[in-house]
Amino acid sequence: MNTKQDWDPYARDCPSRQLLDRIGDRWTVLVLGTLEDGPLRFSEVARRVDGVSQKMLTQTLRAAERDGLVTRTVFAEVPPRVEYELSALGRSLREPLRALEAWATTHMPDVLDARSRAHA
Amino acid sequence: MNTKQDWDPYARDCPSRQLLDRIGDRWTVLVLGTLEDGPLRFSEVARRVDGVSQKMLTQTLRAAERDGLVTRTVFAEVPPRVEYELSALGRSLREPLRALEAWATTHMPDVLDARSRAHA
Repeated sequence: MNTKQDWDPYARDCPSRQLLDRIGDRWTVLVLGTLEDGPLRFSEVARRVDGVSQKMLTQTLRAAERDGLVTRTVFAEVPPRVEYELSALGRSLREPLRALEAWATTHMPDVLDARSRAHA
Repeated sequence: MNTKQDWDPYARDCPSRQLLDRIGDRWTVLVLGTLEDGPLRFSEVARRVDGVSQKMLTQTLRAAERDGLVTRTVFAEVPPRVEYELSALGRSLREPLRALEAWATTHMPDVLDARSRAHA
């Protein structure tokens, strides 16, 4: 698996399958969404992603940092200020995630219609 | 929440958050991907999505059918033939999902680089 075309999420052991899972995760989509307009502190992200638990937000930010999507900067202040920001790689992911978000909000009525027909 | 702009996945109780979760799910992405070129039987989808369990595939297809993304057609043969096909709504979701898939396969090397730096 050295070249681009070798990555195949349809193959069970390809790491791209797990990556696909990660980037499609609701918390990743929303957290990266909050960082679209610039760096934020943990507490600011938490406030914008209504209802996310501290634990889940910590996990999501750590995974995004590990995957190179988000950078974490500690400012030497008292108390220390920590900011999260999209990396270039993270910014490249925003377009597909925005499209996914837009699909969900645009087609919510269609999905609700389908669900009510399914229960009729 | 009657008009399009009212759906907000950043709000904890908005159903669009759960929909976002559903459509970003790895199995949904892959299963809808297999249906891109036309209808398939359950066993054909199972074969293309390497490693998916029968239970998970059943759940994924049922949820997609309930949400109006996939139609299920039973042909009166012996034994009965059942085919799954993308609906118009499901086809409208393919473009964002394809973009997500393409991001994962294109940027897998960048993510692996970031991970190895994180462990350095």
